[in-house]
Amino acid sequence: MSIKIGVIGCGYWGPNLIRNFAENENAELIWLCDLDENRPLTFKRRYPTIKTTSNFQDLIDDSTLEAVVIATPVTTHFPLAKAALEAGKHVFVEKPFTASVKEAAELVELAAKKGLNIFVDHVFLYTGAVRKIKTLIDSGELGELLYFDSTRVNLGLFQRDINVVWDLAPHDFSIMDYLIGREPQQLSAVGSSHIAPDIENVAYVICKFDDEFIAHFHFNWLAPVKIRQMLIAGSKKMIIFDDNEPSEKLKIYDKGVDTTGDKESAYETLVSYRTGDVWIPKIDGTEALKSACHEFLLSIIEKRQPFTDGEAGLRVVRMLENAQISIKNGGNFVKV
Amino acid sequence: MSIKIGVIGCGYWGPNLIRNFAENENAELIWLCDLDENRPLTFKRRYPTIKTTSNFQDLIDDSTLEAVVIATPVTTHFPLAKAALEAGKHVFVEKPFTASVKEAAELVELAAKKGLNIFVDHVFLYTGAVRKIKTLIDSGELGELLYFDSTRVNLGLFQRDINVVWDLAPHDFSIMDYLIGREPQQLSAVGSSHIAPDIENVAYVICKFDDEFIAHFHFNWLAPVKIRQMLIAGSKKMIIFDDNEPSEKLKIYDKGVDTTGDKESAYETLVSYRTGDVWIPKIDGTEALKSACHEFLLSIIEKRQPFTDGEAGLRVVRMLENAQISIKNGGNFVKV
Amino acid sequence: MSIKIGVIGCGYWGPNLIRNFAENENAELIWLCDLDENRPLTFKRRYPTIKTTSNFQDLIDDSTLEAVVIATPVTTHFPLAKAALEAGKHVFVEKPFTASVKEAAELVELAAKKGLNIFVDHVFLYTGAVRKIKTLIDSGELGELLYFDSTRVNLGLFQRDINVVWDLAPHDFSIMDYLIGREPQQLSAVGSSHIAPDIENVAYVICKFDDEFIAHFHFNWLAPVKIRQMLIAGSKKMIIFDDNEPSEKLKIYDKGVDTTGDKESAYETLVSYRTGDVWIPKIDGTEALKSACHEFLLSIIEKRQPFTDGEAGLRVVRMLENAQISIKNGGNFVKV
Amino acid sequence: MSIKIGVIGCGYWGPNLIRNFAENENAELIWLCDLDENRPLTFKRRYPTIKTTSNFQDLIDDSTLEAVVIATPVTTHFPLAKAALEAGKHVFVEKPFTASVKEAAELVELAAKKGLNIFVDHVFLYTGAVRKIKTLIDSGELGELLYFDSTRVNLGLFQRDINVVWDLAPHDFSIMDYLIGREPQQLSAVGSSHIAPDIENVAYVICKFDDEFIAHFHFNWLAPVKIRQMLIAGSKKMIIFDDNEPSEKLKIYDKGVDTTGDKESAYETLVSYRTGDVWIPKIDGTEALKSACHEFLLSIIEKRQPFTDGEAGLRVVRMLENAQISIKNGGNFVKV
Repeated sequence: MSIKIGVIGCGYWGPNLIRNFAENENAELIWLCDLDENRPLTFKRRYPTIKTTSNFQDLIDDSTLEAVVIATPVTTHFPLAKAALEAGKHVFVEKPFTASVKEAAELVELAAKKGLNIFVDHVFLYTGAVRKIKTLIDSGELGELLYFDSTRVNLGLFQRDINVVWDLAPHDFSIMDYLIGREPQQLSAVGSSHIAPDIENVAYVICKFDDEFIAHFHFNWLAPVKIRQMLIAGSKKMIIFDDNEPSEKLKIYDKGVDTTGDKESAYETLVSYRTGDVWIPKIDGTEALKSACHEFLLSIIEKRQPFTDGEAGLRVVRMLENAQISIKNGGNFVKV
Repeated sequence: MSIKIGVIGCGYWGPNLIRNFAENENAELIWLCDLDENRPLTFKRRYPTIKTTSNFQDLIDDSTLEAVVIATPVTTHFPLAKAALEAGKHVFVEKPFTASVKEAAELVELAAKKGLNIFVDHVFLYTGAVRKIKTLIDSGELGELLYFDSTRVNLGLFQRDINVVWDLAPHDFSIMDYLIGREPQQLSAVGSSHIAPDIENVAYVICKFDDEFIAHFHFNWLAPVKIRQMLIAGSKKMIIFDDNEPSEKLKIYDKGVDTTGDKESAYETLVSYRTGDVWIPKIDGTEALKSACHEFLLSIIEKRQPFTDGEAGLRVVRMLENAQISIKNGGNFVKV
Repeated sequence: MSIKIGVIGCGYWGPNLIRNFAENENAELIWLCDLDENRPLTFKRRYPTIKTTSNFQDLIDDSTLEAVVIATPVTTHFPLAKAALEAGKHVFVEKPFTASVKEAAELVELAAKKGLNIFVDHVFLYTGAVRKIKTLIDSGELGELLYFDSTRVNLGLFQRDINVVWDLAPHDFSIMDYLIGREPQQLSAVGSSHIAPDIENVAYVICKFDDEFIAHFHFNWLAPVKIRQMLIAGSKKMIIFDDNEPSEKLKIYDKGVDTTGDKESAYETLVSYRTGDVWIPKIDGTEALKSACHEFLLSIIEKRQPFTDGEAGLRVVRMLENAQISIKNGGNFVKV
Repeated sequence: MSIKIGVIGCGYWGPNLIRNFAENENAELIWLCDLDENRPLTFKRRYPTIKTTSNFQDLIDDSTLEAVVIATPVTTHFPLAKAALEAGKHVFVEKPFTASVKEAAELVELAAKKGLNIFVDHVFLYTGAVRKIKTLIDSGELGELLYFDSTRVNLGLFQRDINVVWDLAPHDFSIMDYLIGREPQQLSAVGSSHIAPDIENVAYVICKFDDEFIAHFHFNWLAPVKIRQMLIAGSKKMIIFDDNEPSEKLKIYDKGVDTTGDKESAYETLVSYRTGDVWIPKIDGTEALKSACHEFLLSIIEKRQPFTDGEAGLRVVRMLENAQISIKNGGNFVKV
């Protein structure tokens, strides 16, 4: 079975989507659309039968088209997805899902009413590394989770329409949402704008939960080196996920602190340190976007919700929106 | 000229102080004191003429003693230093200077009144690496400073009487105080206590200033690996200081973003990226504590304030105390 | 001006050549040839006007074709290049140039007689890193060259027709030939065959010169990690070239040993060590193969010898052939 | 039980031996001897009852002394050890054991005749890392051993009396001897002398065995960085031992090549690659020299041969001597 697909937005990330859907046997790539009409044309040589347009309405009006892939600036996600859903088409939306919680909630509701699928491209959840971490957490191997700390910095592409949080945090927020499996209770974000006014290029986000678990994020477009590092600590083991490493991305440390005695009192607690082996598991190297596209198509064929559905997109947008509110309030904590 | 010295506290850090003062020709090491009377005795074999005691009053009462070195738990710094100053002796105090701003201020005032020197052992300010960074900042080579980000984490020794901020932050706060040369306006700190109640073993601190400069700190006793990394970014160049590196501790990146056009508007700002060479300067490898002890002695001999004086100690304690207040208030910003 | 080009061999490396010649405005890509006729056809969609064949004679017979690019197994280089030269066409040959010195010499002679260009694709000589090293050597910044040490190991693709030396050494031998600028006097090679008989999968090569300069190479298809490291030491400075590093490939160390006193006697020589800064220069990131293809075309247009000509190819093949002889003789030195 | 010990040579390495024997309860440190009479005196403050001399004959003549520890230049090992053995004392000799095979053999014979122990301080064999590797090899986990490759380079201390092979190779040769458990059949060594005449500061050594196993060593006093890396490959797993790493010294790779089909012919061999997890075992961090001193004392008390006995020292000296012969012969292979 083959789903008829159209892609809107052929710029930065679009070509990867086009390639993956073109090569997936469950998809039939029918339409390419971009405001810059030359962009779709460059794909015509490789995919000669494809239809191209600069008007997305052509896709909406094509009653044979079953799904639309949206890879455009975030502010356009809502109107494009809404139009597609109203026209009875499934949607695949690039992250971040929408520019606001209100938009996200409306799309989720609309899709439910229409019986259509929303897929949000939280692509990191389709990597072998994140899947492996999830397996380790679920198996209890890490013990009770203690903290989640992520650093995503580099000399990055400055964006004019969104700040560094909206640009980079969808990755880390979606990973945390998946791995930890619960939403923060409160969130604080602080940022600075060194390049252009009110477009934060460095930001720190802290999430508090209803216990001592804590999550922290460092986002930065103005760092001298690229760092892609997560620390995920459990009471039994700890993980470092370094996404810059070509093959040894995950290191699992059999390290920790064991406490005995009266744990109600710091002075009575007996602390002992544990240091054991380190393990670097082999991880599945399949291109994450390939798996994501596959899951989108399969969820349509199997008439079920996709793994990264509109609800997942909504939770991430809720964190983004609250981070933005906290930044504008000077960094005080916001209830999520 | 040779200053007569007594050391109080011969435990963890004390032996390093003892060795450095014993080997410095401007010092004459007279007394060793520790509540555990066996500790000073172990040094007697190496320094047979030294006097030992378990009662610090013996040092206070020795009218020939000119200076006292205090390397005891932080809560005892104030009474010991006060007694020494009142007895007319200069004091060298381990970091953190005192357990509160009130104590620090009282000692600073007392020393001024008595015409005595307080030296606070912010030992990192005597390393070749930090001195080199200061030179680069002062020369204007970094341009305008943008942010300061420090990570100091490892599977550390859990302390019963102080949390991870009081344990580790004196290093980073004193470095920032020296390099940046101004105090933050507001400060927020968030922590979690996974090992023992109310003793935070992980904490994040953010400092805001009166402009877009921002400082951030990550302290952690429960991390699988040791990280000692600072990012110091200027508008012209950026520095990474990795204190884990045995020899290549500083990397100076000729990297940045240049902006032109109307900088009042994000949409009108023109951004261009700059990537040039990286430079790893040779740095002075002298033991920092040796230089610190030397500066203490020299400041007495030259009848001048030492480089890391009581005021410097007070500024660091002010940050520590405010961090503690913010942690207990759930992380909201505190005016410094 | 545009040179009419045909590519023979569309397998592993061929697609890179096809793309680079197709995108170079000094080339007109006319023919693709491969024994497997399906391979050229896969390029037809992207380059619809291109002619394809499984018979290289079609290219020889096309009198409008001016140059042939040969990316086939090494044993076929000689007959293909010879036929092309005899038909009056310039040739671009993948490394290693030929399977023997005799073949290489015959082609060089033939090209000279015909007034045609041979270009050997020693592609590393077109990287920014190697060019930068050459500039540093030529400027005298390194001082007198002392040694060249290269390690090129990984869990590599086992080849059935050639051993690890013929597979990997063309890179390192061509780099040394370019940087050092003189041929070794003697050469020794030792290898072992752990996978298949008489196909060495690990080998060490040492080159001796007429003075104390020494060169050493480690080639390995059966190593647990990928190492691409060269040490190039001069009397004044030393370079480490780590080709695994994404951006900081070259480190230049201001380190060395200074000797004074009577240098004729070890006991009278006074030795002092010098340790200064390290410098990581920014290097040109242009794709090396793009520059190589450009140089081939330009050398034809400008009617001059290309930078990596048949003579360069011959010198590298001479080292390969002597390494093979030494391996088969048990590792004793062979006069080059 | 406590062995009466005297140490000859209190220079570079001596203080470590003095400390370890002084702290071992099975030893009673009686004598310190050095040609420079001031050196032993500096230890007198710490060990006030110790006897010091600049004449080793004083130790020989002390009939209560049971064992002599020799940490002097290599050329003096033989006369000192011989005199000690003849006087009925056990000997602990720093590596390399002696300056020649002849000397080593004579000492081994003499000790056997006298019923005394010779201990050669191949200190690396007492590290947790090397012991762990040995366990892995002996358990069969690595499979059949394929090669051993060691790199030991840095900007090292130039020695006037011995070249880089005699200085550094005792470590690597003793490790290989222990891990591999058999002697090479042939050995080749090539070196260059850039600093002083006939004192090679860079050298490469290759060992051939009676099968396809191969060993290779790179020694260098004139390298810009310190590298301490061994690759030990088996048919099932491979190890990298990086002694520069503070804690993660050993990485065990579940990687390799599996071959099937007709292994007598390269063209018929079917090759498949295997890539699995990487494992970093925790290793015992006990100071190696402490364990070495303990083993020496225990072997005397238990009246048995020590783990690193004179035979082990002789095998290493045999490799050193043959390496020297090969270097002087221009690098051709020498039968061991």
